[in-house]
Amino acid sequence: MFAPETYAARRSALARQLDGLIVILGNDNVPMNYAGNVYGFRQDGSFLYYGGLDEPGLALTIDADTGESVLYGHEPTLDDAIWEGPMASLGDRAAAIGIPTTAVPDALEEAVASARHAGRTVHVLPPYRAVHKIRLAKMLDEDASSIQASEPLIDAVIAQRLVKSDEEVAEIEKAVALAKEVHELAMSLAHPGRTEWEIAGAIEGHLAGQGGFPAFPIILTKHGETLHNHASGAVLDAGDLLLIDTGAVVPGTRYASDITRVAPVGGTFSDRQRDVYQIVLDAQTACIEGMAPGVPFRDLHQLAGLTLTRGLQGLGLMTGDAEEAVAAGAHALFMPHGLGHPMGLDVHDMEGLGEDRVGYDDEFQRSDQFGTKYLRFGRRLDAGHVMTVEPGCYFIPALMDVWQREGKHLDFIDYDALSSWRDFGGVRLEDDVLVTDVGFRVLGPEIPKAPEAVETIIRAGASA
Amino acid sequence: MFAPETYAARRSALARQLDGLIVILGNDNVPMNYAGNVYGFRQDGSFLYYGGLDEPGLALTIDADTGESVLYGHEPTLDDAIWEGPMASLGDRAAAIGIPTTAVPDALEEAVASARHAGRTVHVLPPYRAVHKIRLAKMLDEDASSIQASEPLIDAVIAQRLVKSDEEVAEIEKAVALAKEVHELAMSLAHPGRTEWEIAGAIEGHLAGQGGFPAFPIILTKHGETLHNHASGAVLDAGDLLLIDTGAVVPGTRYASDITRVAPVGGTFSDRQRDVYQIVLDAQTACIEGMAPGVPFRDLHQLAGLTLTRGLQGLGLMTGDAEEAVAAGAHALFMPHGLGHPMGLDVHDMEGLGEDRVGYDDEFQRSDQFGTKYLRFGRRLDAGHVMTVEPGCYFIPALMDVWQREGKHLDFIDYDALSSWRDFGGVRLEDDVLVTDVGFRVLGPEIPKAPEAVETIIRAGASA
Repeated sequence: MFAPETYAARRSALARQLDGLIVILGNDNVPMNYAGNVYGFRQDGSFLYYGGLDEPGLALTIDADTGESVLYGHEPTLDDAIWEGPMASLGDRAAAIGIPTTAVPDALEEAVASARHAGRTVHVLPPYRAVHKIRLAKMLDEDASSIQASEPLIDAVIAQRLVKSDEEVAEIEKAVALAKEVHELAMSLAHPGRTEWEIAGAIEGHLAGQGGFPAFPIILTKHGETLHNHASGAVLDAGDLLLIDTGAVVPGTRYASDITRVAPVGGTFSDRQRDVYQIVLDAQTACIEGMAPGVPFRDLHQLAGLTLTRGLQGLGLMTGDAEEAVAAGAHALFMPHGLGHPMGLDVHDMEGLGEDRVGYDDEFQRSDQFGTKYLRFGRRLDAGHVMTVEPGCYFIPALMDVWQREGKHLDFIDYDALSSWRDFGGVRLEDDVLVTDVGFRVLGPEIPKAPEAVETIIRAGASA
Repeated sequence: MFAPETYAARRSALARQLDGLIVILGNDNVPMNYAGNVYGFRQDGSFLYYGGLDEPGLALTIDADTGESVLYGHEPTLDDAIWEGPMASLGDRAAAIGIPTTAVPDALEEAVASARHAGRTVHVLPPYRAVHKIRLAKMLDEDASSIQASEPLIDAVIAQRLVKSDEEVAEIEKAVALAKEVHELAMSLAHPGRTEWEIAGAIEGHLAGQGGFPAFPIILTKHGETLHNHASGAVLDAGDLLLIDTGAVVPGTRYASDITRVAPVGGTFSDRQRDVYQIVLDAQTACIEGMAPGVPFRDLHQLAGLTLTRGLQGLGLMTGDAEEAVAAGAHALFMPHGLGHPMGLDVHDMEGLGEDRVGYDDEFQRSDQFGTKYLRFGRRLDAGHVMTVEPGCYFIPALMDVWQREGKHLDFIDYDALSSWRDFGGVRLEDDVLVTDVGFRVLGPEIPKAPEAVETIIRAGASA
């Protein structure tokens, strides 16, 4: 956790933007298969930002008119001591985040009722957990399926959380350092005979071994052409291309990282694999180097498409004018996703507050073109933004078949040439990048990315 | 998964017990910190029992009057293929569980509305996931916080699921075999310098590496006196007693295991540790050997208490008449939990249907005595029941202080003698036991338990 002053300063800054009572709900434990058997706890990102405490059963209010905050929670009982062990008092936990006032959980309902009774505005964030929908529905006399979140609160939180302070950036760099450890571990295991499960398990175990956990379900697959493919029992064969997309959440502050690398199983890229890998690396390098305050992220997304298109033209898979191909969206056959997304306490930072509110504005609206419509963030970058930059190139048989059948983009795509690439799989390369006052900084320690560096670390690893 | 006929036969047997429409909701994915970032999927136990499919977004109805079942779910789309990979059609998935009829998810709401309109009874199980509470509230015109579940359905499901078939027992034995692997792994790592996190991480990684996962949050701690203590960054020291309570869920059918062992860090029990360990082992052996159809599990719980009390009298920590001490509940200072619980698709089997409905009946009601009140199952055993048998002996400073201050059970407890045991920690031993027609069978392969066997496997392991 940060110092109490950090959380107090964040709350004060938020309070200055609004009137009324601000409610920030912490997350609770979630049942897996019955109420007593719960998933590993994941705290809400905004609660972590304003309240730091990484445990269930808490909520806080910030009175925007007086600037006062209250932490709501339980005092530990003897039963807690017997079953869960000794625990700090609620007062001590509140002090750790700079809040002098505590109350029992139900007092939140009373505080909200009394604010509403007095005609004050009650600001809540959009709930994504169903249990919060039920609680807020009662609290605000609304329907659980359509809770009215506060737009001014959402906008104020986004503005604040999107720009990372130095101490936040330092935490993200720790998360990248953890990601480096597991990526190097995964590469060292990328040998014939091992299963995807085995390598994903090694990653999970390594992170748990340090009190961390994956920032999102690990994507680890020899079928990288499936964008969100999780590990299966598939056995790796020589010649497979293993795509590893994983990030870590650090103990303590719970900031995230999100890194993708691709490893040739056994340690040698084939010529085709190296060609595609280099194209993606070129696209990523161009986009990273283009990052600076004022640059629209959508332009960088288009730059990735252009670099990709030119590279695929070199391989004889695309034809025609490259800029026209990108404008038409032909490259999306090979990269049907966006270039990247903001990252922080959430790996898709603040996605729960509304992706369009975070990533788009009056100047940049979301495109409806296939591919670009999945771009999560299109607007201008600013100093302090932390973005993933993750172009990819995939050969997706199901998509190729549909496009060819529909005769899509025949001027730009050579479907005949593609027929021998159906089994290629996919390549994606992803790093986490800070926008600085003058340009950019790739966060964390360097994680092997040049083809030779990746081959070296695989070859130094062990077979099953 | 089992053969389609297994699921069809289970549904037919259930339908014969009831009239009206039976609704079994499958689980959905649960958001961690925003809707798109979800926890590892855990299917509902009753859905697995009657519908086998281990994936989100499904529900089924069983028409108790016609015997017909319907599977509700989505057909895979092109977007699914791009992001999640190829998937079987809904019809193929339904065929795998012996159901010829499928429908879109929303058709469930229509089926329920039409059954209610026709004055038929609609039976639902108690929801533990908040998203199901909201869905059922709309479907049944009820309050999300107090859905009226069907008692006849609950009782019929409990009666059916509680008695395991041979093919179910075989799956539980696979789950115990996985637990053996991770317990032996954990013992081999029980050396000074390692952290609890490291060993818990190794367990998680090993299970994930085979497509399994822990049946419940791993309990792994040098403070075994805290009953549900999860791993921390605590470093193991020579002389610590490491308590490991973990079980596995098997790929495919998703049956669970639940095993506890205790390892002396470095590989040698101290005299005191060996004494307490032997007392717990004696209690466990006595209870297991007492299992047979018709035996009340509460009697075995009391037998554990009696064996414990006699052992602690031998150590000079308890005094007086042992049977009187147990009747008074004095031994609960050392074992403040129940002897065990049923186990199957849920590690506390069917706890979500109501612990008292599963474990108590007209003959045996839950005790309100401290300790025994936590016994999850008190009634008579029957052939086909699978129970954990898990006595323990703990030295819990917070509890000892309260009892001594209150002067509790001064006739039976020697608080002065206890003062030198405050740092001991705790011992629990747990196996999974099937009640057979004639007695019992401990399930799965043998997992090292004799003190010498545990010491041997630790010593063969490696230091950090």
